[in-house]
Amino acid sequence: MPETALLSSALHDELLHVAHLLADAARPIALQYFRGAGQDIENKLDGDFDPVTVADRLIERKMREILAQHRPQDSILGEEFAAYEGTSGLTWVLDPIDGTRGFISGTPTWGVLIAVGPENGPLIGMIDQPFTGERFLGTPKQAQWQHPSGERALGTRRCGGLQDAILFTTFPEIGTPLEQAAFNRVRDRVKLTRYGMDCYAYGLLAAGQVDLVIEAGLNAYDIQGPLAVIEAAGGIVTDWQGEPAHKGGQVIAAGDPALHAAALALLQADGTV
Amino acid sequence: MPETALLSSALHDELLHVAHLLADAARPIALQYFRGAGQDIENKLDGDFDPVTVADRLIERKMREILAQHRPQDSILGEEFAAYEGTSGLTWVLDPIDGTRGFISGTPTWGVLIAVGPENGPLIGMIDQPFTGERFLGTPKQAQWQHPSGERALGTRRCGGLQDAILFTTFPEIGTPLEQAAFNRVRDRVKLTRYGMDCYAYGLLAAGQVDLVIEAGLNAYDIQGPLAVIEAAGGIVTDWQGEPAHKGGQVIAAGDPALHAAALALLQADGTV
Repeated sequence: MPETALLSSALHDELLHVAHLLADAARPIALQYFRGAGQDIENKLDGDFDPVTVADRLIERKMREILAQHRPQDSILGEEFAAYEGTSGLTWVLDPIDGTRGFISGTPTWGVLIAVGPENGPLIGMIDQPFTGERFLGTPKQAQWQHPSGERALGTRRCGGLQDAILFTTFPEIGTPLEQAAFNRVRDRVKLTRYGMDCYAYGLLAAGQVDLVIEAGLNAYDIQGPLAVIEAAGGIVTDWQGEPAHKGGQVIAAGDPALHAAALALLQADGTV
Repeated sequence: MPETALLSSALHDELLHVAHLLADAARPIALQYFRGAGQDIENKLDGDFDPVTVADRLIERKMREILAQHRPQDSILGEEFAAYEGTSGLTWVLDPIDGTRGFISGTPTWGVLIAVGPENGPLIGMIDQPFTGERFLGTPKQAQWQHPSGERALGTRRCGGLQDAILFTTFPEIGTPLEQAAFNRVRDRVKLTRYGMDCYAYGLLAAGQVDLVIEAGLNAYDIQGPLAVIEAAGGIVTDWQGEPAHKGGQVIAAGDPALHAAALALLQADGTV
């Protein structure tokens, strides 16, 4: 573990500053292509519907330029281009546009995801939604929601139990059939299940608006930004085994630790996931 | 049919002006309760999850005050209070907060729905989203998207066929089992199905971002605002029999008439809906 694990105040401030630079640079590019005539969707995987926009690549290229200028010593793991190996022990984990299906549908549910930290997980994270102008950020020192109308501290909410919980996931068809069955056990016990919010759901959880987000098949860059935000806001994010989730895969995020335990038990109830 | 069916230019402008007054009045009330500490959810139907917020009632009361002042001759059909019978042959159809589940979850997908027209359907409609600051409006003269960043003409888009279509509906569990099966026939043929957008999906359709919205179990006040917006933008809204949809029930909205016909045929394919 490098000395950066301790994250001095100066380093915290520098990394947070650079994270804001990345998110600020992403916004105008994303908005230029969002709902715009310049939008040009490509299919990343033949035969599968995983669109990636020109904006996705333009943003990550811009982010890498900024990192090369400000933090050349750090590694980079991004969705669009090859990993870059730095020397500091810190890695920037970038998803320039998380929620491309939302993006191409015009919904303000996608986000720019940014995280930085050592190998064992992110210390600083951001979820930025350029169209609404919202930025959810989390660090060891603060959890904050920023918006043109003002700033507020982020904090997850307590929840009386599954019967009171609002659950989010992006698609009803979550993961494999066994993962689907596990998810459905939770879905059938909560007060309300909603879909289609992409990474914005994690921001709402950090803001104390919803109680659970459960997903499967995530990549590290899909979860590291949200993970840092939610932990800073008092929530808990693990995989479906209760282990660290920063590498992606099956993820469960909860605002209330007791609710997390209850939902985790349901996910694991038949021993198949 | 009253003379208002012709909608003189002066009357058009007056009704549109009043519709803006209603939407403008709704915004600050809705935002005061959205994601706020003042939010107080009640269950409208015992044993069913149909929350209605205090904001819902405050807004409709305020809207009725404005109508009493500016258009006392018109009827009112609102979600929250008893119908009011006017003398003009025109009815204001109001849903102060459509998408209360989205509202209580913090998602910017709910909207203030306003429509006015004679008995055979709305002439002027609005979908207002106070948090994003978007207003989608449609009249016999114009279809417009308004936002703090500017205004744009709304127009639906052409679609090459079901295989190219983006479909929205609010819940995967749509209507009755037979309605569900009908919906699934369309879902299984389109490029992408997304959920959870409430009335915002109709605005996206009017803006040419998505191609189909299919829902069941709607009330008149759920669809009349969107209906006027989409028709003004060049789209088509009917029930699942291809008949007028302004009374609610099963609704299919499409940006492209040929796509509407193809989806309608699938809905009706087994003769059960």
